[in-house]
Amino acid sequence: MKALKNTWYAAAWDVELQPGALVARRILGEALVLYRDADGLPVAAADRCPHRLAPLSAGRLEEGQLRCMYHGLLFGQGGRCVEVPGQEMISPNLKLKTYPLVERHRYLWIWMGDPALADPALIPDAHWLADPNWRALPGYLHYDRANYVTVMDNLLDFSHLAFVHENTLGGGKVSAEIKPRIERFDWGLRISRLYSNIPLPPYLKALARFEGLVDRWQIYDWRMAGNVLSMDFGSAPAGCGALEGARPPEALVFHTVQCLTPETEGSTHYFWAAANGFELDNALVTEEIHRQTAIAFAEDKAIIQAQQAVIDEHPHERMTAIAADAGLQQGRALLGRMLQAEADREAAA
Amino acid sequence: MKALKNTWYAAAWDVELQPGALVARRILGEALVLYRDADGLPVAAADRCPHRLAPLSAGRLEEGQLRCMYHGLLFGQGGRCVEVPGQEMISPNLKLKTYPLVERHRYLWIWMGDPALADPALIPDAHWLADPNWRALPGYLHYDRANYVTVMDNLLDFSHLAFVHENTLGGGKVSAEIKPRIERFDWGLRISRLYSNIPLPPYLKALARFEGLVDRWQIYDWRMAGNVLSMDFGSAPAGCGALEGARPPEALVFHTVQCLTPETEGSTHYFWAAANGFELDNALVTEEIHRQTAIAFAEDKAIIQAQQAVIDEHPHERMTAIAADAGLQQGRALLGRMLQAEADREAAA
Amino acid sequence: MKALKNTWYAAAWDVELQPGALVARRILGEALVLYRDADGLPVAAADRCPHRLAPLSAGRLEEGQLRCMYHGLLFGQGGRCVEVPGQEMISPNLKLKTYPLVERHRYLWIWMGDPALADPALIPDAHWLADPNWRALPGYLHYDRANYVTVMDNLLDFSHLAFVHENTLGGGKVSAEIKPRIERFDWGLRISRLYSNIPLPPYLKALARFEGLVDRWQIYDWRMAGNVLSMDFGSAPAGCGALEGARPPEALVFHTVQCLTPETEGSTHYFWAAANGFELDNALVTEEIHRQTAIAFAEDKAIIQAQQAVIDEHPHERMTAIAADAGLQQGRALLGRMLQAEADREAAA
Repeated sequence: MKALKNTWYAAAWDVELQPGALVARRILGEALVLYRDADGLPVAAADRCPHRLAPLSAGRLEEGQLRCMYHGLLFGQGGRCVEVPGQEMISPNLKLKTYPLVERHRYLWIWMGDPALADPALIPDAHWLADPNWRALPGYLHYDRANYVTVMDNLLDFSHLAFVHENTLGGGKVSAEIKPRIERFDWGLRISRLYSNIPLPPYLKALARFEGLVDRWQIYDWRMAGNVLSMDFGSAPAGCGALEGARPPEALVFHTVQCLTPETEGSTHYFWAAANGFELDNALVTEEIHRQTAIAFAEDKAIIQAQQAVIDEHPHERMTAIAADAGLQQGRALLGRMLQAEADREAAA
Repeated sequence: MKALKNTWYAAAWDVELQPGALVARRILGEALVLYRDADGLPVAAADRCPHRLAPLSAGRLEEGQLRCMYHGLLFGQGGRCVEVPGQEMISPNLKLKTYPLVERHRYLWIWMGDPALADPALIPDAHWLADPNWRALPGYLHYDRANYVTVMDNLLDFSHLAFVHENTLGGGKVSAEIKPRIERFDWGLRISRLYSNIPLPPYLKALARFEGLVDRWQIYDWRMAGNVLSMDFGSAPAGCGALEGARPPEALVFHTVQCLTPETEGSTHYFWAAANGFELDNALVTEEIHRQTAIAFAEDKAIIQAQQAVIDEHPHERMTAIAADAGLQQGRALLGRMLQAEADREAAA
Repeated sequence: MKALKNTWYAAAWDVELQPGALVARRILGEALVLYRDADGLPVAAADRCPHRLAPLSAGRLEEGQLRCMYHGLLFGQGGRCVEVPGQEMISPNLKLKTYPLVERHRYLWIWMGDPALADPALIPDAHWLADPNWRALPGYLHYDRANYVTVMDNLLDFSHLAFVHENTLGGGKVSAEIKPRIERFDWGLRISRLYSNIPLPPYLKALARFEGLVDRWQIYDWRMAGNVLSMDFGSAPAGCGALEGARPPEALVFHTVQCLTPETEGSTHYFWAAANGFELDNALVTEEIHRQTAIAFAEDKAIIQAQQAVIDEHPHERMTAIAADAGLQQGRALLGRMLQAEADREAAA
């Protein structure tokens, strides 16, 4: 499925743009080069020299200016060409196509659509990743063979935890049996899943600071623009009031921000971070959560890419809905309306 | 070339369907999952969950029922869905597409066409593979880049033994020089090749129980429906009457059943077994014959796939016939008539 | 871009055609087999048996005749079939398509167009490679993903030496700053690049027989028919008159012959040899020059193939010219006229 253009997408993690680094990244089908200029500000440009289309990501940063290493053209602020070896005059056509790129909460957010609409106030909230009360490591998974909507489907229906993540994030068939609460907004969906009196999910067993059954919650917003999932979740001793909002000190509390950025129509960047709000002084805890989450997300990738291959082979085959599909059906309907609205705006322009 | 649909094809060897195993196999372009139900009966179903098209071969067998490991739907007898986690009512649309699959003579035979026509009496005879007077091991070769007709051509003209199998099945230019007898039937061709007073073919030298020249025979039926070659062949001391049908005790007698099953238009499954009817108590003999035959069939694959690549690049180039093409020309003509008859029946229906 | 058909192209090095060798090579999209006949004369034929299209490069040379190793047809002089196993009469249609192939100056030159036009007098001069006053080793680079014109562009603009070959053939920004002299002929371009008072290029440092700054020259002919670059180049102590033609004994003098032969529209054979005209008795010098040149040409390949990928993705994107493009623009214009002339001749025929 096509993707919204006029929205902020996660393009990279802040740490990817080290001094001197040129990062080649494709987003919404466009090959880009990402880097920092002399002031440390992030830049995104089309990854091709306007001279003879050599990729600039094969070039070199020289004090924040980007040198094409085929014939030596040098590009400075705003993508303007500032040097053509062996030539005095420089054509104003020798200019890189640049894209708005904003660094916030450890993500670099890019706007691939009309730059006049690129309002930084629309950038999704990911403050947990840069908040002293939370700890998080940057995560990334490349879906080399999946449209972003196939991954979105997965995130809008956690009933799969019982099967795909049986030995990791899951925790028995209860994951497939509880009825989530789904609230609809013009920006997306809020999905609440509350589990009482269940065993800890397998992947948290080594981290628990208490024994016995737990109450578990997963309350998440799916923001359609940018495909951002922001989730408050965790587990606490059963009966302590966690499902009503209590957060006792021994609770294992988390907040994730997960972003699906279409790379092409058939591939997707998956940026994610699972912040923990406990044991803040123990880096090993954060590392272990990151490691376990990465294992679980690889389980998703395996089944989703296998599913995508079948979908691609049978593009006209009808799917048969079940009750658990409520979230993804509402999500797809909203996405359809938003894509149509964007198409209408473009047609009117 | 297209393939006949209303016929039995070899789909697997019996031993592939171990308890609990889910075998993913593509036949006539359709992705299938093969397994055994609770009674041990073989099942073939389209390899996609009717819910959201996840492949069922990535699922799990639970007491002979097939669980999709994405959202947990469970399928029982006849492909009927017997469980949807978190849901009481089950839509009758939640049903697997299944195909007739019959186990006989160590092969599993599948019918991809109209199931109403799937008469088990039409299953090709392969009894030698399950007969106490013969010994055979199951063989398989994947033609990843060859249409089944290009392989059929090879099997209908053994003149290539002199060149492709010079050091294995061959035995000198005589293989290319003798004139086979070709009989035509409505079901296919019978080809008889008799060699007198020649050396043993190289691959049998270690197995011979006599010295000197041999009489050699290859008498085979090519059954067009299902692409099955069934061959009586062997070597005996020259002059002992083998070419008139005598089978002295020291004769090296064999019977193969070789099945070409189209995987896609560009790839082919090749199931084969070379049964020996001598030294029945010596498993090493059967193993050595299997090993030698596999080496020879790999020689075929190398030249056939190289030929297929040239054919694909020059789809309109005329071939120039030679005398040795008689068998394959008659075979292709019959195949054309059978394909046309099937197309006519479909158009009339 | 399409390529000229009625011209000689480098097809192979003489040493590739060892006795008995069958070399599979694709030129202008045609799969060929190259070999030597019984007299040692080179032969080029379409790499497919006229019988059933098996590739002849998978066959066998028998005393200079080519045996197809599928069904044993044997082809002799002029591509004529001289044996069909098991058959007396041989159809005159059983004939290989052959191409003019001439061995000269260590190259094998092929003519893919109208054989009536294949005049050996048109073969490009490469005598330096077979001259006792020079030493050269045969070089080859496979551009698996580049049209020959993209490589031609590179050869017609040496300003890239400053950037692509900064640490090998280069020698500072001067390579990008000097103005080459470009002379136009009906057969191609002559480009002269003279550098005075510069440091030796890095890759020659180990070979120099003198100290201090040098005068450096690169004077080359680009012959459009066949895509042949023939270059007189070298370095000599600054001020010794090298730029006016003097060649003092300590000068490092070279002559290369580099040939681009289109393999397909998207891939290119690059045959090259860098002959040295000094230290003729020291084979290590020639080997070291060959090794260093191969390293530098791999640098070209990396950027050219990366550029080609961007061009292929943006086929309609305009490039923006700079002064350094003069050579390649004149080259492309001439190529366009020659291609048009060939198309006109074909249309008139």
